[in-house]
Amino acid sequence: MAEAEIIAVGSELLTADKIDTNSLFLTSQLNDIGIEVVRKIVVGDERARLAESVRNAASRSAIVILSGGLGPTEDDVTRDAVAAALGRELVFSEDVCEAIRARFRSFGRKMSEVNKRQAFVIAGAEVLPNPRGTAPGQWVDTGACVVALLPGPPRELKPMFVEECIPRLRARFPARVIRTRLFRATGIGEGDLDQTIAPVYTRYSNPVTTILASSGDIQIHLRAQSDTEEEAEQLLDEVGAQILPLLGDKVYSRNGDPLEKVIGAALRQRGQTLAVAESCTGGLLGGRITSVPGSSDYFRGGFVTYTNEMKTALLGVPPELIERHTEVSEPVARAMAEGARRGTGADYALSITGYAGPDGGTADNPVGTVFIGLATPTADSDVRRLRLPGDRDRIRGFAVQNALDMLRRALGI
Amino acid sequence: MAEAEIIAVGSELLTADKIDTNSLFLTSQLNDIGIEVVRKIVVGDERARLAESVRNAASRSAIVILSGGLGPTEDDVTRDAVAAALGRELVFSEDVCEAIRARFRSFGRKMSEVNKRQAFVIAGAEVLPNPRGTAPGQWVDTGACVVALLPGPPRELKPMFVEECIPRLRARFPARVIRTRLFRATGIGEGDLDQTIAPVYTRYSNPVTTILASSGDIQIHLRAQSDTEEEAEQLLDEVGAQILPLLGDKVYSRNGDPLEKVIGAALRQRGQTLAVAESCTGGLLGGRITSVPGSSDYFRGGFVTYTNEMKTALLGVPPELIERHTEVSEPVARAMAEGARRGTGADYALSITGYAGPDGGTADNPVGTVFIGLATPTADSDVRRLRLPGDRDRIRGFAVQNALDMLRRALGI
Repeated sequence: MAEAEIIAVGSELLTADKIDTNSLFLTSQLNDIGIEVVRKIVVGDERARLAESVRNAASRSAIVILSGGLGPTEDDVTRDAVAAALGRELVFSEDVCEAIRARFRSFGRKMSEVNKRQAFVIAGAEVLPNPRGTAPGQWVDTGACVVALLPGPPRELKPMFVEECIPRLRARFPARVIRTRLFRATGIGEGDLDQTIAPVYTRYSNPVTTILASSGDIQIHLRAQSDTEEEAEQLLDEVGAQILPLLGDKVYSRNGDPLEKVIGAALRQRGQTLAVAESCTGGLLGGRITSVPGSSDYFRGGFVTYTNEMKTALLGVPPELIERHTEVSEPVARAMAEGARRGTGADYALSITGYAGPDGGTADNPVGTVFIGLATPTADSDVRRLRLPGDRDRIRGFAVQNALDMLRRALGI
Repeated sequence: MAEAEIIAVGSELLTADKIDTNSLFLTSQLNDIGIEVVRKIVVGDERARLAESVRNAASRSAIVILSGGLGPTEDDVTRDAVAAALGRELVFSEDVCEAIRARFRSFGRKMSEVNKRQAFVIAGAEVLPNPRGTAPGQWVDTGACVVALLPGPPRELKPMFVEECIPRLRARFPARVIRTRLFRATGIGEGDLDQTIAPVYTRYSNPVTTILASSGDIQIHLRAQSDTEEEAEQLLDEVGAQILPLLGDKVYSRNGDPLEKVIGAALRQRGQTLAVAESCTGGLLGGRITSVPGSSDYFRGGFVTYTNEMKTALLGVPPELIERHTEVSEPVARAMAEGARRGTGADYALSITGYAGPDGGTADNPVGTVFIGLATPTADSDVRRLRLPGDRDRIRGFAVQNALDMLRRALGI
């Protein structure tokens, strides 16, 4: 089995509050193609120290993956340090420079002089294009060892690694076939879900099952290895067929699609539309619904009514209703959803009102209390009362997730 | 300043789901007594690999802290590996063995034979007692370098480090004081900002300056060390006083507060209010404004108008205006901002309309084109046209950042 070392570069990764998480993604990807990670190193933005770490890693492992330090500034030293460690020159590439210049031009901006630093390439390296940023990656194969230089930002590193490095590694280090499957569930705690399906998945070491949870959304990853695609898929089918019935309608996606996309596809297919009315989430529900490209096919829009006055002015919530029940209450959530549906002409409208904290709340409805309303074309509007854990961010994230799940269930998907 | 390397031992820390977090605690503690962490390493439970990492670290840094691998099992190799790396013997300690035996006895249990492994001490090492577990720590001072062996579980490692290691380190390495400062800027590219301030900060190795950028928001971290607090603060003042004028009104925060909080504080102080009208961002602007606790003091709410029909119905944007100029245009952004201000009675209203992609856009206004409108109580409303880079997520993030920055400038902060 081929062995890799991962080197994360950046002085900020040596502080007390920041941690390298790129290596988790890289490890998962490397494991998927049968490569083991045997050492992880974090070094600051210092040429000599980094060069030493690269020299050591390259002398003992077949694969060295670096992340970070490819920016245009003085303290971006990865190019220099790797060149020094491998005893190679850095060569200015007019092609790379022109690509960076073109990227700036496409935004109507002029490339800074400092960005020229990013056009230096280690002699003999292949340039890995970076459509998502100015820093191209580099791939050096010394014969004894391959060294990959990747940008630090995860949204640049991840696609570059998947698109450019994985195929090269697969070709260089033959591995077994790996197939994965991703189910997503909501409306159940991570612990409960694990307890429910552990009796199945613990009987299998292949596929490997991993459970990840975030803001009430649970991902169940299955990873099978085999000599053939067919057998790997068969292993996934076998375990999936036992897990899914145990979770019933908690599972909303069998192909990894997120909740907002699953709901959007159903609305589009039915030719129906959606609107929102948000108080404590301030727009996050609309923001999440519109994270899906093409969501204008079914999302009309909505109202952010952060004050009581706005709930009345924009959604027609009667002031007496707020006075009698407070703005965080079942009747107000209902009136908000109905007001949003009326005001936009949408088929469905979701509303959220609650105490996200850290201050606010009442004895009956402490911080974390959230009411979700749903107005529909066919039935009376419905309201759910929730008690959500965590800090302000987490309460708002859970509220959005629960609102989407309430709509999913109303849509019968 | 004394320099430390931290080595976390454990094969589980090289998987895709687990990360070493002990190093964050250790870093914070070390920084507090003026010791800098210059490298972090994670190695699996393998004697030879670990010994090599310890040998390298001890040859170049004054302090090496190891966590993990002190248990009683076969794969607990830290004692062996450090002894080998330092060229010292492992010596069985009857005293340590008796302490472990006594610990078992106190729970009414008998010590297992395997626990004897934990009674081997590196020749010349001091034993660090562990009242919370069976694995004692060890402290080796070679003269050139100190090496500390700590247990992996955080509830054992943390008190042992604080009670046993900090006093020893303080005595061995006279402490220096560390002070930090965080400036935040926007409306300038990372490369341009660096080019502007590098002539200043590169002249100083103390404080150290680090630049981090995300979605158009740039953080400038300064970290100074000194013998006294006063001098550290003075160093920060000195560099800050040169950097800040170069950046002028690009700097919006001198204490690390994020943009939405800075704006909120100004609005609150003036008793003024804000509303939003969002198209392509779908609510993210409102979501960000309301991420600040207490934002209801100044944020009234707003409109998510994701379709043209909604722009007309909720914001009163004339359909002819949209037909003539398209919905992504300067006049429509202006009409949206004015409609939001009118509809909510807020003092200021921000609007966002644009093509976030991946589809859409026109020849003149391709994907990434965003118009930001601002209606104010005092002047004519204003519109800015932007060409933003990246994918859908990034375009939407940049749009929100630019909208907030436009308001900041209008508020003169």
